[in-house]
Amino acid sequence: MVGPAVHPVEAPPPTTEAAPLRIRMKDFQGMAGTTGALALRLCQFVFAAVSLCVMATTSDFPSVTAFRYLVAAVGLQCIWSLSLALADTYAILVRRSFRNTGAVSLFAIGDGITSTLTFAAACASAGITVLIGNDLDKCNLNHCTRFMSATAMAFLSWFAVSPSFLLNFWSLASR
Amino acid sequence: MVGPAVHPVEAPPPTTEAAPLRIRMKDFQGMAGTTGALALRLCQFVFAAVSLCVMATTSDFPSVTAFRYLVAAVGLQCIWSLSLALADTYAILVRRSFRNTGAVSLFAIGDGITSTLTFAAACASAGITVLIGNDLDKCNLNHCTRFMSATAMAFLSWFAVSPSFLLNFWSLASR
Repeated sequence: MVGPAVHPVEAPPPTTEAAPLRIRMKDFQGMAGTTGALALRLCQFVFAAVSLCVMATTSDFPSVTAFRYLVAAVGLQCIWSLSLALADTYAILVRRSFRNTGAVSLFAIGDGITSTLTFAAACASAGITVLIGNDLDKCNLNHCTRFMSATAMAFLSWFAVSPSFLLNFWSLASR
Repeated sequence: MVGPAVHPVEAPPPTTEAAPLRIRMKDFQGMAGTTGALALRLCQFVFAAVSLCVMATTSDFPSVTAFRYLVAAVGLQCIWSLSLALADTYAILVRRSFRNTGAVSLFAIGDGITSTLTFAAACASAGITVLIGNDLDKCNLNHCTRFMSATAMAFLSWFAVSPSFLLNFWSLASR
């Protein structure tokens, strides 16, 4: 007779208790499929949409290449953020988060591309707005306030995309 | 007498053979302390230095805010890349790579900041160069070629910083 096996300690069954949680330590707010990610996506979408509307309703934006580019880049950002907001909503509704490497790497690559384009457009517009406003001092002939608002909104949209990109990239690297 | 111990199999001493390699599977070219990283750093430094020289020798760059900002951002990129090139050279000479999390996170944060600044400056300059050249068609009055060269070199420097940033961030996340 083996001593310790006579009165076995009631070991807690680990599988049945851990199953309902479905959360690993690596999952935190902001990664794809969480409410934090959904909030970030909605911020990106709102800022990009406001920037698009403000710039597109300016009468003379097509005369400057950088402003045309801003409209295109911010429009792309709108579409991308809205699509991923829908994907996150679905993931939250079915109480799952994106596990497979393919989806997360697609999100990371897409975030990297759209954030780079939005940031480039915002910087180019900012350079031209500052040139018109400060260096040439021709704000009385141009819609400086609208250009500035659209640029600021594009920057805010980029600020909201960056955490999404970094978190998706991080979750891709740490698996 | 214990049977298997009579004629011991000559087990290979694992510590002394593995020691000269000092390479883990996660280490690949481009991460801090490798020759790939040194090559990237030298590319960044050369492109940033050329951009700085071309822009700073233009007579009328101080009249445009974005060009002044380009000079500042590219100057910072020069200093940062040269410092890290020296650190990488030292690491290669003593045949070590950067292991501790503090150093790698410092590199990743610094790369993130300098690459963002360089990219922003390059985009702003590109916006203004395109405005002068295409939209206003005033290249005969300005140093369009020099502005374009400086902008292109700043973009190339950013292209060389991005892999450094991504690899350092990846190596930080995957430990």
